[in-house]
Amino acid sequence: MRITIDRLMTTLEEVWQFGATSNGGVTRLALTDEDRDARNLLRTWCEDAGMTVRIDDFGNMIAHRAGTEDVPPVMMGSHADTVPLGGRYDGILGILSALEVVRTLNDHGIETRHPIEVVNWTAEEGSRFRPPLFGSTGALGLHDYDSAMTSTDAHGLRAGDELARIGYAGAATNRPDGARAYLELHIEQGPVLESEHLGVGLVQGIIGQTWHEVTVRGKAGHAGANPMHLRKDALVAAAQMILEIRRLVLAGAGYSVATVGEISVKPGAMNVVPSEATFTIDVRTAGQADMLAFEAGLDAIARQVETDEGVSVAITGADMNHAHSVAFDPEVMAAIREAMVAEGLPVRELWSGAGHDAGPIAGRWPTGMIFVRSKNGLSHAEAEYSSPEDIEAATNVLLRAAVRLAT
Amino acid sequence: MRITIDRLMTTLEEVWQFGATSNGGVTRLALTDEDRDARNLLRTWCEDAGMTVRIDDFGNMIAHRAGTEDVPPVMMGSHADTVPLGGRYDGILGILSALEVVRTLNDHGIETRHPIEVVNWTAEEGSRFRPPLFGSTGALGLHDYDSAMTSTDAHGLRAGDELARIGYAGAATNRPDGARAYLELHIEQGPVLESEHLGVGLVQGIIGQTWHEVTVRGKAGHAGANPMHLRKDALVAAAQMILEIRRLVLAGAGYSVATVGEISVKPGAMNVVPSEATFTIDVRTAGQADMLAFEAGLDAIARQVETDEGVSVAITGADMNHAHSVAFDPEVMAAIREAMVAEGLPVRELWSGAGHDAGPIAGRWPTGMIFVRSKNGLSHAEAEYSSPEDIEAATNVLLRAAVRLAT
Repeated sequence: MRITIDRLMTTLEEVWQFGATSNGGVTRLALTDEDRDARNLLRTWCEDAGMTVRIDDFGNMIAHRAGTEDVPPVMMGSHADTVPLGGRYDGILGILSALEVVRTLNDHGIETRHPIEVVNWTAEEGSRFRPPLFGSTGALGLHDYDSAMTSTDAHGLRAGDELARIGYAGAATNRPDGARAYLELHIEQGPVLESEHLGVGLVQGIIGQTWHEVTVRGKAGHAGANPMHLRKDALVAAAQMILEIRRLVLAGAGYSVATVGEISVKPGAMNVVPSEATFTIDVRTAGQADMLAFEAGLDAIARQVETDEGVSVAITGADMNHAHSVAFDPEVMAAIREAMVAEGLPVRELWSGAGHDAGPIAGRWPTGMIFVRSKNGLSHAEAEYSSPEDIEAATNVLLRAAVRLAT
Repeated sequence: MRITIDRLMTTLEEVWQFGATSNGGVTRLALTDEDRDARNLLRTWCEDAGMTVRIDDFGNMIAHRAGTEDVPPVMMGSHADTVPLGGRYDGILGILSALEVVRTLNDHGIETRHPIEVVNWTAEEGSRFRPPLFGSTGALGLHDYDSAMTSTDAHGLRAGDELARIGYAGAATNRPDGARAYLELHIEQGPVLESEHLGVGLVQGIIGQTWHEVTVRGKAGHAGANPMHLRKDALVAAAQMILEIRRLVLAGAGYSVATVGEISVKPGAMNVVPSEATFTIDVRTAGQADMLAFEAGLDAIARQVETDEGVSVAITGADMNHAHSVAFDPEVMAAIREAMVAEGLPVRELWSGAGHDAGPIAGRWPTGMIFVRSKNGLSHAEAEYSSPEDIEAATNVLLRAAVRLAT
């Protein structure tokens, strides 16, 4: 039993039209007309495939294929929204590959013990409405319905109003209320699989994340009149820290990354020694122990730089965007692993550095993810690309894993 | 023969009122009403001291005290304008200490062979009109009169119009046309004298200056999904360069400093690996050979970082603000040195890291400078401070050196 890649690619191509950009990308922000049009087409396809589609109060679409017993479903899905000037694969591939699995089961007249559900989670990206993972976390009761619905976009439009406007404000009683397993197929959004010439990866979990803001305070001074040994240069001290932060994560055990993505200096003049440098750190680790080790190491770096450079270092904001790492379910991972072996694929396990609906869901139901190679590691960009060959291989893995878990 | 510090401090206090800020600083931009008021008072004082005041076509004020022979004058002076929110000493101290020298000579009925001139150079700071060193370089014919006079301030007002408005548009024939020597007393604007517990310094010259702009190009990427070893992080590469640039100037021979005063990154988001980092370098060296050595070293650093980090580095802008270093005249320096010894002061020689009217003047006439200790090395700031004791000691040095050179 094999999926039909041409049929899957045709569905992808049809959905790409909703929000297509002139550079081959997609802008399909959540709860816009483009999102509505994609949802309507998806609903038609699911119903044509014999499924019953229900909508919950967060606008999540759940397409249900009955099983032979009244037991919790095997759910598969992802999200149909994109970032502005995003790509063609992020999110939508996880929904349409799930639909392709159902179509393949239909082709072969296969019934499963557990029902199968295809899910489109509302507004995963957080580009238009807050919080990100809007629909999945909402349906799981992880944030308040009323505050979510009064979240406004850049034009002051409210999420609840937009959900009603596009016709996808459903009932709270329609929320998913249990699952045998949740499977999400997604593009990697990074360069690991490509760097190892692999098309498909088995995701171990979603790494934890913490944001810090670091402020280094030194002493301003005339760029000519201050000899190097009498300076307290905030930017030189910040540069020391940036390099030490990299050494710290490279020295760590499991998968850890740290990124200084923003930096600014005061007074910010060519001919003045900087008195202040402020930068951000985005840290992600595969486990909470590594996160705590990073934070201890960061503190030691700050104290050392204070001593070496005569500056003061303040670290704040660790609670700005704190998320614990999530390890996926061993049984679901085993099902994916066996499917990869059966498909003749090398089993590369890797952590997801990006967040996904599978993260919060893993806290509730047994969850696993399958990654598809991203060309140049690109995502959230119009040039995002994954090949039909890799998509076919990954979707066959999804099919096998779903059938196994649903049996 | 000693100068009278109370009299000198009184003149300083009277001029401070023109542009005084609530925080004890001064904002007296060139060719404003405040500048005019300071000029008018200065003119009165000079005339009261028996001098003849003439104004040249750049608005420079030259107060002339006759000598016993018709030979070139010993000139002393500085500038009366300040930066916005500047201090009370930068510039004006060099004019009023020169006036105090003349008053002291008058007190003792001393005539000198060479005439003595006290000069107020127009618009040294470059805060309102370009170029900086407006009046001194203009009078020396180092830039075009018409383009200088059509230079506009932030409100579109032209230098020539403002000069006429405040009544200081004089004749080209009044420009200084020769000098036995030029002496400028100025605050250090740096921390060197203070760090060595010295009140007065002998300036060796003005260090040369070059500005560079460096652009490091790497590859953007998701902060979670890109392992450290697969990144081309433009900011990490820039941090390497910033530290290597410091090592380079510290390893150099004479006085060299380098300052990275501005930095920015693209795309500049907390959760995106920077694809581009741009920073400036202000390099100052005591000789052209050191400047060339720095530039060769900078190029080597760039190539090494390209190799180590997989980025590309472009260095531009070396001609943005290029000035050769200027060494002061040995005979004038000897006169200052002997005066310091006679005053019982340790002779600390140091380079000026800041530009002064004495820089271009040194290219034409024998020139020297005397530095006064700056509290906390501060300048171009309201908290700028030099003590009456240090000012007294430095002005007595100026008196001795001027008399010696004028004899």
